[in-house]
Amino acid sequence: MRMYDLIQKKKTGGELTAEEIAFMVEGFTAGRIPDYQMSAMMMAIYFQGMTRQETVELTLSMAKSGQMLDLGSISGIKADKHSTGGVGDKTSLALLPMVSACGLTIAKMSGRGLGHTGGTIDKLESFPGFRTDIAIDEFKRNADELGIALMGQTAELAPADKKLYALRDVTATVDQMSLIASSIMSKKLASGADLIVLDVKTGSGAFMKNLDDAKALAKEMVQIGEDAGRKMRAVISDMDQPLGRKIGNILEVQEAIDTLRGNGPKDFTELVMTLGSQMLILGGIVQTEEEARGRLNSVIRDGSALDRLADLISAQGGDSSYVYEPEKLPKAPVRYEVTAPESGIINRIVCDEAGNCCLMLGGGRVTKEDEIDLTVGLELTRKVGDRVTEGDVIAILYAADEETAQQAAQRYLKAVTIDKQEPEPRPLIWEII
Amino acid sequence: MRMYDLIQKKKTGGELTAEEIAFMVEGFTAGRIPDYQMSAMMMAIYFQGMTRQETVELTLSMAKSGQMLDLGSISGIKADKHSTGGVGDKTSLALLPMVSACGLTIAKMSGRGLGHTGGTIDKLESFPGFRTDIAIDEFKRNADELGIALMGQTAELAPADKKLYALRDVTATVDQMSLIASSIMSKKLASGADLIVLDVKTGSGAFMKNLDDAKALAKEMVQIGEDAGRKMRAVISDMDQPLGRKIGNILEVQEAIDTLRGNGPKDFTELVMTLGSQMLILGGIVQTEEEARGRLNSVIRDGSALDRLADLISAQGGDSSYVYEPEKLPKAPVRYEVTAPESGIINRIVCDEAGNCCLMLGGGRVTKEDEIDLTVGLELTRKVGDRVTEGDVIAILYAADEETAQQAAQRYLKAVTIDKQEPEPRPLIWEII
Repeated sequence: MRMYDLIQKKKTGGELTAEEIAFMVEGFTAGRIPDYQMSAMMMAIYFQGMTRQETVELTLSMAKSGQMLDLGSISGIKADKHSTGGVGDKTSLALLPMVSACGLTIAKMSGRGLGHTGGTIDKLESFPGFRTDIAIDEFKRNADELGIALMGQTAELAPADKKLYALRDVTATVDQMSLIASSIMSKKLASGADLIVLDVKTGSGAFMKNLDDAKALAKEMVQIGEDAGRKMRAVISDMDQPLGRKIGNILEVQEAIDTLRGNGPKDFTELVMTLGSQMLILGGIVQTEEEARGRLNSVIRDGSALDRLADLISAQGGDSSYVYEPEKLPKAPVRYEVTAPESGIINRIVCDEAGNCCLMLGGGRVTKEDEIDLTVGLELTRKVGDRVTEGDVIAILYAADEETAQQAAQRYLKAVTIDKQEPEPRPLIWEII
Repeated sequence: MRMYDLIQKKKTGGELTAEEIAFMVEGFTAGRIPDYQMSAMMMAIYFQGMTRQETVELTLSMAKSGQMLDLGSISGIKADKHSTGGVGDKTSLALLPMVSACGLTIAKMSGRGLGHTGGTIDKLESFPGFRTDIAIDEFKRNADELGIALMGQTAELAPADKKLYALRDVTATVDQMSLIASSIMSKKLASGADLIVLDVKTGSGAFMKNLDDAKALAKEMVQIGEDAGRKMRAVISDMDQPLGRKIGNILEVQEAIDTLRGNGPKDFTELVMTLGSQMLILGGIVQTEEEARGRLNSVIRDGSALDRLADLISAQGGDSSYVYEPEKLPKAPVRYEVTAPESGIINRIVCDEAGNCCLMLGGGRVTKEDEIDLTVGLELTRKVGDRVTEGDVIAILYAADEETAQQAAQRYLKAVTIDKQEPEPRPLIWEII
């Protein structure tokens, strides 16, 4: 088999076989197939697309390029969740303890944040002592015994995807739906869960700016997962403004805990309930959305969801007292109020820019090696659709120093549009696939 | 400027500017732009095509990537000719002395043969002592004084094209019309002639198997040349069976000399007359095809075309007595007759396979380093359309030994189809563009 022939075949609209795709992925990962052939193939795929079968085979080949996590020794139905990323997205922190308290098993590998979006692992490290670099045996044992475990991606999942993504990133071949879907799903399949619920974001702050693209991506990923024998569901949710009110690691932990206590922001709570319901239905815990919401509300009311988070924190070496007293968590020295420069209705908050303010305050990474200040961030006291009078506080910045706070405030003000007109209303949940 | 953005632009159907194309070609040639980005670009071009303006800019950028020959010091109208390659194509050997004798100046750089097609330089080296590695000053002086000079491609013309072609060759991006046209034309433009006549072959033995592709390629090349300020003409000629009757270096030299004496094979003579007429008209030597043919016939009749070849040979150190007594040239030791295995009409001679027989006999190069046996080759005593009776000699092989001759004969017989039906007649000249 020659890579040249595979490029030619794809270029002329042919369908690659499972053997051909495996040959290509293995050869590329091992360095036998050079970058210049693979990039030509990626561009040919951009134009010719991939069939459902090809996409599944590519995903499986990439998943198998590294360690495939075997969660078979863990009791229960292993559930996973993936978000395509956004600003203020602390969903896993609230959602996973809730569904675990309802009876699903969570054994999840999670990544760190990069750029203007945060990572679950970073947020969990807000709890003093909490370790995400636990051994795989401890991870499996915790998941089995407590129903929940989370670890950093120490094992390299789907190294072929990592190498291929790096190549696509410099050859303008990222924006192809099947390639995006297979990249995400290769890591999910390697992570070993039985059921996977995807949170596919759409809107100006999402990777998929428009709804049709988000739907198409969601459908591809659901198909891949189902063809690979997993139970799949995707929720298309809005990311046109930041999710919830808080952005920044400790701030988001506190907001997630508020939500686990039933006091979370309305939009964020609704997203968690929607995703949680789909997970419970898919896992066979309940039959209907109504039942699911009942169960999720009861684990909030009886405190068992919050306890499940505490179990997770203490099992991995963290101080779980902070779960019950999140106000004890470290605070940034400077509290800086951003006020409305004029009266009107908040029409827009540019999502990425709100994330970039947090990055500017020191709350995120520009490069992988950067240290994060867990205390800093933003609290959006007013969101899109809120009426404001000139001088009203629209956001509070938590900063390491006054100067950075002022600079971030300037930037935040540029990200906010105040208008006389009501903004076009957008639903939080666009569709469930 | 970033290559990434240029790939993205082309991928989405944009038109690259002259500056962008120059940036790309210069960066790639200098190694600043990596192969993997260039191959993605080539694949994007395969799908999106290039505008006439882009094609011209790419060609000029590649032409300028190395030495641009300046023929300005040579008197007269400098004419060049290019063939897309075929089997038995000894056209330059007869054509160039003829048009030179008619008043055009030939100052041509020429390549060596590779694979089953031969090169003019190799054929000329059949004349004992003839040197093609002359210095550029000698080349220019000879062209100026004698009206004809030919040298091997010692100076690297269009190195960007060489590097790019090597990349396209392994990434399945060769078969794009504008890229093929710019590749050929970059070397032609760098060669400096005022007028260029292209012999674009079509048929099973040609790079362009079908007429439409050959026409499209011819048009693109003519446009590029015209946009770059050269006088251009293209002749679409047939290459469905070998041209003339002889294949092999010395054999082809002898056939070219026969033609210069007015005794050449009909098809080959007609091609030379057609190309020569176009060159004379384009160079303003004559106005009409009829006049042109008159001039070409007169330089054959009065021997001045043959004398012009002799001038070329002796000026570059060769023994020109062989021009007048070509039968003195070395002969292969073995003469082997291939006979018709059945009676009928020759329906087909697979062109490439006839070329491969010559290669097998030692008359061509598989790799660039191979030594050529100038004496070996084939003489096709019968061609497509000829009636044969079982046992008739259909070809004579000239070989170094009996065994190789037998093997080549077996191969040649497989390349020939004898049928009861007349083959579909094909014109020699399909079109002039």
